[in-house]
Amino acid sequence: MLVVAALGGNALLKRGEPLTAENQRRNVQEAARSLAEIVRAGHALVVTHGNGPQVGLLALQGAAYKPDELYPLDVLGAETEGMIGYLIEQELENELGHDRPVATLLTQVLVDPADPAFKKPTKFVGPVYSEEEAKQLADQRDWDIAKDGTYWRRVVPSPKPKDIPDLRVLQLLLDQGVVIICTGGGGIPVIERADGAMIGIEAVIDKDAASALLAERLKADALLMLTDVDAVYRDFGSETAEAIRHLSADEAEALVLPDGSMGPKVESAVAFSRAGDGFAGIGRLSDALAILEQRAGTVVSTQG
Amino acid sequence: MLVVAALGGNALLKRGEPLTAENQRRNVQEAARSLAEIVRAGHALVVTHGNGPQVGLLALQGAAYKPDELYPLDVLGAETEGMIGYLIEQELENELGHDRPVATLLTQVLVDPADPAFKKPTKFVGPVYSEEEAKQLADQRDWDIAKDGTYWRRVVPSPKPKDIPDLRVLQLLLDQGVVIICTGGGGIPVIERADGAMIGIEAVIDKDAASALLAERLKADALLMLTDVDAVYRDFGSETAEAIRHLSADEAEALVLPDGSMGPKVESAVAFSRAGDGFAGIGRLSDALAILEQRAGTVVSTQG
Repeated sequence: MLVVAALGGNALLKRGEPLTAENQRRNVQEAARSLAEIVRAGHALVVTHGNGPQVGLLALQGAAYKPDELYPLDVLGAETEGMIGYLIEQELENELGHDRPVATLLTQVLVDPADPAFKKPTKFVGPVYSEEEAKQLADQRDWDIAKDGTYWRRVVPSPKPKDIPDLRVLQLLLDQGVVIICTGGGGIPVIERADGAMIGIEAVIDKDAASALLAERLKADALLMLTDVDAVYRDFGSETAEAIRHLSADEAEALVLPDGSMGPKVESAVAFSRAGDGFAGIGRLSDALAILEQRAGTVVSTQG
Repeated sequence: MLVVAALGGNALLKRGEPLTAENQRRNVQEAARSLAEIVRAGHALVVTHGNGPQVGLLALQGAAYKPDELYPLDVLGAETEGMIGYLIEQELENELGHDRPVATLLTQVLVDPADPAFKKPTKFVGPVYSEEEAKQLADQRDWDIAKDGTYWRRVVPSPKPKDIPDLRVLQLLLDQGVVIICTGGGGIPVIERADGAMIGIEAVIDKDAASALLAERLKADALLMLTDVDAVYRDFGSETAEAIRHLSADEAEALVLPDGSMGPKVESAVAFSRAGDGFAGIGRLSDALAILEQRAGTVVSTQG
């Protein structure tokens, strides 16, 4: 099977851990052990990953050093694709042995400048500010700002992914048996200008949505969204909470989920399973192969 | 012809310019125009680039934010491969049109842990400190430090590149006509442990040396080292200064050059031209195609 595996934030950093290089490497080692099982079982593998905390760190570091020379989000996203991709590639190569080629490819993802997200930015990024500071920065830098708890922060748009221009190159590598790491952080957001040029834009793309588009375009057999929860739950957090093993796309769509990261995963699972013959699996990173073999996690497919 | 083109630091940032994203993008646009001429003339192209100022900036930003959670140099190198690779890829794609695939590949470069450079670190990196601060940090973090003008700074080893594990993947992409950006900043430095695992190490690799090794292993026809000087000069800086058009490898080796960036370029040109049938060209970035056609710059070949 061709498998696209999307690593959640906790594959890089467990809840509450400081965002050090050492912590990320240790977590990535665990992730690599789990992903290597998929490759050893004979499947073709494409790995994607989140980058929220890492982009946040770069924004904080930039603001601490020269707040008037901040890098735009497309460039910060590219930096995190390099950093995180490197850690995953190195640990996966060490886990698989060096006969199996693994490649990390920078990935731009096209978004629509008319996407409604650009009118209503919602994703918090970077440092917290007082209301006064935030309003001043909003004026100076043409930022959107919003209240995050008792502080204020910059908010940026999260448009839907529309296309992945690097798909041809990804396909070439897959055809040659290369394990690929790509579309990190949902990809580097770019728009197409009227003159046909593509250019980076200040936005972030949801990793699960971009991974679902990637899996659809590559005609993957399975899209795995790997996190630190073992399955999608009915009545999560209540006494009657129950892990769901199988869901049809229609059932998944009708599911009422609490706020948090499960919503985008289920939405992406529905989109991918409806787009073709593949199925989506959601569950614990350490169960990756078991989810692929439909022995663990929650499986979403058009059949249910 | 198969051409490896190594972009000097000034392809990203002109002397004296602040290291902003805007400045780098504008310079990369110029570089892309020049590189695109090589592709349009029908040649296969691999682009490499430096990363010294960019790694320095990340080190400064990290020190300004949380000086006790600095990222190691292999990780910072990976970040710069992402950032710079992205800018070059996007501008090159826009210059070539989007029918021609361009791919940016993270590249690890193997170095020898017994390399004498590890005993004698020489490359300055990161912030300047007072002598007292520097000595304290050296103790705390197991750093090597040295005097840089009136201040003190961290110094890191610059070992010779020995091998490029990602070569197979690069070759696959080249065989399919993909323009490649790789081995940025001389590559991410890794060593092989006794157990066969490869692991990042605190070092930096000379970009020209890594580019020469890459060109040799890919059996490139030409290695271009592109900078802001039009040629190698005899008696540079004096009244009798004279641009050199052709040099044999022996003549190049015997050349007495002032300190600076020309030394590593000539050394890498000698190494590459002796390793096979290809020639090396050194000159101005805007003359890239002319240097390849031996109408500009300094050409180093075993024939001279």
